[in-house]
Amino acid sequence: MKRIGILGAGQLGRMMALAGMPLGFEFALYDTSGAPSAGLGTIFSDPDNTQSELDRFLDFVDVVTYEFEHLPLDLAQNIAARKPLYPEVEALRVCQNREHEKALFTQLGIPTPKYRLVNSPKELAEAARELGTPVVAKSITEGYDGKGQAVLKSAAEAEAAWNNIGHPRLIVESFVNFSREISIIAARSSTGETVTYPLAENIHHGGILRYTIAPAPRISAELAQKAAEYIETLMAHLSYVGVLALELFETPDGLLANEMAPRVHNSGHWSMNGAHTGQFENHLRAVAGLPLGDTQPVGVSCMINLIGRHADRDSVLTLSDTHLHLYGKEERAGRKLGHINIVAEDYKALIAKVEKCLPFVPEHTPFTSSLAHFD
Amino acid sequence: MKRIGILGAGQLGRMMALAGMPLGFEFALYDTSGAPSAGLGTIFSDPDNTQSELDRFLDFVDVVTYEFEHLPLDLAQNIAARKPLYPEVEALRVCQNREHEKALFTQLGIPTPKYRLVNSPKELAEAARELGTPVVAKSITEGYDGKGQAVLKSAAEAEAAWNNIGHPRLIVESFVNFSREISIIAARSSTGETVTYPLAENIHHGGILRYTIAPAPRISAELAQKAAEYIETLMAHLSYVGVLALELFETPDGLLANEMAPRVHNSGHWSMNGAHTGQFENHLRAVAGLPLGDTQPVGVSCMINLIGRHADRDSVLTLSDTHLHLYGKEERAGRKLGHINIVAEDYKALIAKVEKCLPFVPEHTPFTSSLAHFD
Repeated sequence: MKRIGILGAGQLGRMMALAGMPLGFEFALYDTSGAPSAGLGTIFSDPDNTQSELDRFLDFVDVVTYEFEHLPLDLAQNIAARKPLYPEVEALRVCQNREHEKALFTQLGIPTPKYRLVNSPKELAEAARELGTPVVAKSITEGYDGKGQAVLKSAAEAEAAWNNIGHPRLIVESFVNFSREISIIAARSSTGETVTYPLAENIHHGGILRYTIAPAPRISAELAQKAAEYIETLMAHLSYVGVLALELFETPDGLLANEMAPRVHNSGHWSMNGAHTGQFENHLRAVAGLPLGDTQPVGVSCMINLIGRHADRDSVLTLSDTHLHLYGKEERAGRKLGHINIVAEDYKALIAKVEKCLPFVPEHTPFTSSLAHFD
Repeated sequence: MKRIGILGAGQLGRMMALAGMPLGFEFALYDTSGAPSAGLGTIFSDPDNTQSELDRFLDFVDVVTYEFEHLPLDLAQNIAARKPLYPEVEALRVCQNREHEKALFTQLGIPTPKYRLVNSPKELAEAARELGTPVVAKSITEGYDGKGQAVLKSAAEAEAAWNNIGHPRLIVESFVNFSREISIIAARSSTGETVTYPLAENIHHGGILRYTIAPAPRISAELAQKAAEYIETLMAHLSYVGVLALELFETPDGLLANEMAPRVHNSGHWSMNGAHTGQFENHLRAVAGLPLGDTQPVGVSCMINLIGRHADRDSVLTLSDTHLHLYGKEERAGRKLGHINIVAEDYKALIAKVEKCLPFVPEHTPFTSSLAHFD
């Protein structure tokens, strides 16, 4: 297995190829956006979604993986009929529909926030009353970085929220009083081997991930074990192959699963410098059936996303053990342009390094992690 | 400065591009071999050395660097007249001629083995007698990985050695009774900033580098300081820009300079995983005038070259903190196909890891480092 095909040619495909070339893989990236930004690999650009270009891509590669989970399922099935597709179609089916995802969490005994499914503004209002406001309403499909969602402070806002989201079926969830957003990343190989990264703490603002701290500070062994159990249960159930990300809320009653993504994940980018083997390398090892790499952390890490505007590169590069990962993209509001990984020996040193770095990150949001009050 | 042009499209260009893309650079690789193996970047393949293809390449890039120092000087001068070329032409002139190199070492007070320059078999025999055999005879130009060299055990072997090397001017050196081969890698930016990596111990067999251990064990502070002084003196004298490698012999009388290379160097590959900033990234930062990165080691490292035959990839990947770097090349006797970087907390753990890895490296030469008797 030599040629890995990636559906999508953005930053995740780029980072996969950068991680995979040293292992001896070649990459082909299939782009339908018309604006592939990966900047390496053999690009099959197909903004018109032609069957012939997809055929050429599939003829060229030995195995297929993807950057994003919102592939049409029939397309995924067609691809899987011709070349191995990892993670497999069932993982896609579950992950691209919140209704299926919640049902699976429930079936496997993974706690989630209470929810209702609704098909009209009237049902939305009823669900809001039943669950007790505030509630979060989300389209059951798509939705990325906070899009397609609305918070309802009262049932009276149902009509407006419904129109705003504009989808025929919504999932309505209790508003969870969480102390932190946590994620866990794991990889499972086609051989069944599984590795799990330490839990990470994620800080979102405006629905966009801004910071990840890994390993997440102040995590009890019990909590860490629960999270590992949940993701391993999911992977085993799905006979999963590749990296899986599971987002969780930390609440006074323990962890609640929010959602999962069947791919390398922004909250795992810290591992590129902060773990012995990064998530991109482990995803490829999994997809190619190679032994998985050591996920142990190297010190403690903070990942800072560069959103909308570029960092002051020259200044960032003056900082020690601070690693820049740019995606080859132009500035645009809300766009992920790159990230910075900072590694330190302990959390105190990490805070100091992050604070030194932030003045060079324009329009950064407050660094409101649980580290803020760390001694 | 965005587009970096590299003369050559082999493994060094490949590793430069892999290190540089996350910093936001784009790469163009100019190949005259007809067999570019880098596998990424925009390749300008020009096996017929046409001016038009070189022009296209130079029009495309903002700055030019190179993989190998045996560029014709007039070509380098032509390129430098059109785009910044780093390291500059003077560094090339010195490094591609052993006579100039030795003269510069001597001029700058850097000790080297005793030597003579000879233009005939007769002069070679005289030099062998004068210096005392054994001596090493080398062509003053070219020569790579032990090619173009001969060891003379007596002056009577002069005629045969001369014919074997087949160059009109040779340098003849005293055979140095060294305990180890050491190298030092440093980078100097166009701003004058300089960083130096820790000394590395190199193990050659059959004229090819097989292992590098870094930091080199049992190096006195005095010795380390001398090596740093030598390379800094060279870089300052040449107003050098980029990574410079200096190979030294460790002898009872201290360090003797063997040769230098004006580029990223095989004996610096350990830094990709064993230092906070790898040599490829620092070379690019230097060439682009960016601040240089921290060269501190992360634990202790061993680099194992994969020569001629590929390693057992699946088995190597079962080992922890063991990193594979393949160059995208087919097997061929004596060819550098890739390397493995192993990182450990201390030398004892490093030896154990290397010994675990070597069975997966076919036809590896004995691991005869100074660590062999390490407690």
